[in-house]
Amino acid sequence: MSPERPLYLDHNATTPVDPEVVDAMLPYLREHFGNPSSAHPYGRRAHEALEMARAQVAALIGAKPSEILFTSGGTEANNLAIRGTAEARAERRHLLTSTIEHPATTLPCDALEWRGWRVTWLPVDAEGRVRVEEAERALDAEGAETALVSLMHANNETGVLQPVADVAARAHRHGATVHTDAAQSVGKVPVDVNALGVDLLTLVGHKLRAPKGVGALYVREGTPLRAVTLGGGQERGLRPGTQNVPYAVGLGVACELAGRRLARGGSAALGALRERLWAGLREAVPGVTLSGQGAERLPNTLHVRFPGVRGGAVLAATPEVAASTGSACHDGGESASPVLRAMGIPEADALGAVRLSLGPDTSPEEVDRAVVVLARGWRQVAG
Amino acid sequence: MSPERPLYLDHNATTPVDPEVVDAMLPYLREHFGNPSSAHPYGRRAHEALEMARAQVAALIGAKPSEILFTSGGTEANNLAIRGTAEARAERRHLLTSTIEHPATTLPCDALEWRGWRVTWLPVDAEGRVRVEEAERALDAEGAETALVSLMHANNETGVLQPVADVAARAHRHGATVHTDAAQSVGKVPVDVNALGVDLLTLVGHKLRAPKGVGALYVREGTPLRAVTLGGGQERGLRPGTQNVPYAVGLGVACELAGRRLARGGSAALGALRERLWAGLREAVPGVTLSGQGAERLPNTLHVRFPGVRGGAVLAATPEVAASTGSACHDGGESASPVLRAMGIPEADALGAVRLSLGPDTSPEEVDRAVVVLARGWRQVAG
Repeated sequence: MSPERPLYLDHNATTPVDPEVVDAMLPYLREHFGNPSSAHPYGRRAHEALEMARAQVAALIGAKPSEILFTSGGTEANNLAIRGTAEARAERRHLLTSTIEHPATTLPCDALEWRGWRVTWLPVDAEGRVRVEEAERALDAEGAETALVSLMHANNETGVLQPVADVAARAHRHGATVHTDAAQSVGKVPVDVNALGVDLLTLVGHKLRAPKGVGALYVREGTPLRAVTLGGGQERGLRPGTQNVPYAVGLGVACELAGRRLARGGSAALGALRERLWAGLREAVPGVTLSGQGAERLPNTLHVRFPGVRGGAVLAATPEVAASTGSACHDGGESASPVLRAMGIPEADALGAVRLSLGPDTSPEEVDRAVVVLARGWRQVAG
Repeated sequence: MSPERPLYLDHNATTPVDPEVVDAMLPYLREHFGNPSSAHPYGRRAHEALEMARAQVAALIGAKPSEILFTSGGTEANNLAIRGTAEARAERRHLLTSTIEHPATTLPCDALEWRGWRVTWLPVDAEGRVRVEEAERALDAEGAETALVSLMHANNETGVLQPVADVAARAHRHGATVHTDAAQSVGKVPVDVNALGVDLLTLVGHKLRAPKGVGALYVREGTPLRAVTLGGGQERGLRPGTQNVPYAVGLGVACELAGRRLARGGSAALGALRERLWAGLREAVPGVTLSGQGAERLPNTLHVRFPGVRGGAVLAATPEVAASTGSACHDGGESASPVLRAMGIPEADALGAVRLSLGPDTSPEEVDRAVVVLARGWRQVAG
């Protein structure tokens, strides 16, 4: 916990890259540098590595390798899913999404709304969860008009899991395509495209111990989708551009490692650590509240609101811990998060929010230390 | 020259990553893993590295750091330049481009044509060069209707340099935005955005000894441009998504190294080596022809046509050399290249094409050896 290396409790913003992932990537940054589209041995070697990585990614989510497209990350994958479906299914004119999505979902949906699509923005309950009945009502009302349902699997701020499988089943009755942004859940909880019943799924390297700048879109066989970025024929023409072979290799290995962690009970271990953190904070900070308390949540995520203070002030008074207030991906600001507003949390309360997100390397000792320093920081600010 | 490590003469398809580039990236794949949008020390460290890299990229092309957007590569940069300009300047309805562009330019222009834009596809002369007079004629005919001119700086197959500065000056008289895809030229010849007079310029990491999966779009201050991919506010909102910090760092260092190579006469050295290769081939393969012979070309690129045979067959008979026939980025096929067709080269002649592209590590001995084995391969095929 040096000033430059505080305790890292911001794994939902980004994760360290697993050392095994770096090691696996290095040969493809060094000797095996070929363009996977080249016909010579350098190209073939790169191509083989890419296809091996594709199989590893597919295996983690119960997909076929041919259903995985590599992208530059979650933003690109979400844009492709939403806009690519809208282009492929332009005979329909309705989208269903929620009020708590990431901007990489919200903004493409907004843009379609501007272009004349109808968009239903599903509200959430006080726990931050979309209600299946409301989704069903909107789907029934639109009948065969819904081209796409895009519902995130786990919220990035609260960690609350959404009823994707239930909504997907209802959406399919009306012939809609179903997309889920699983950026935060893949690697932390078991995610299976068939159990979820989704047609499109976004996963993101830097949320699961691969580097920033790589992700994947799962595209179920037969799902109508048009390319959004245009160019060469890579990734079946759906995501052109020379593939980032080293990062694809890294993503593949990260998926394999995540699968192993999950298989040996990594979710439960993380969940126990997160509960230890919550128990400690609840005792040390009277009046602290937990967002999404009654909902099923990602095991690594603890979203709390400190009473009577701003979350940013607490973190500023606690330099020993690196965490975030809003969603670190896109904003360092201190206006209340749209996600908390959608949950009906009053502005003053929402401004007390701090998201603490653990990783598989976080230790019980670190959690205990975090409780001490955060409580001290809070007392300092609360006066 | 083992069967798995033939002599690499395919630097226009992709380059090895410079070992110094890998070394510079490693700390950002290891300890400095923060999200550059995070407010804590991990984030600040990543942010600083990103901004340092932005300055290094800017310096190579005579730009300001604030004019550089990091992208996932050239395809994304070209799509953003073309579609982002079309969205920002929708009051105009005309584009000017050429018949020898990369698919990442051609296809976005095609898509706009489908959506009602007028597109002028400039032909090239027998040397593969766009004629300034034809560009001028098209611009004069369209008056204030041309939103964008997109003309590549150097052709990826022939290496022929295009009259970008001359066309840009004429385009600006009519208030058009000017984009150049400089994927192949940056790092091989001096490229300066002010000397070229362009508003938008694409550069690509893996063509200049940085990894595959990173590029940049130069956007001159004040140039109207709208985001194409939508999401968080990164890269001034024009290219959202958590930045790939390690690769941005790598691109920055690769640009700095390229600048040093150019400053110490790297272009001339490459050109001399390329001439040695041509002199050798001309002597060893009677009837071999050189594409773009009378035009100014990239110093590393030798595009030749072997007489009476297919280029693919020559390469298949020469496993000691890794090179390409068409443009390895997107096709391993053997139909005649559209670039050669645009130059008026007959199909049978065009099918004999082989592109040999050198790198700064290529040695005179390797060039001499390439002549011997390619001539032997040709004789074997020609019978």
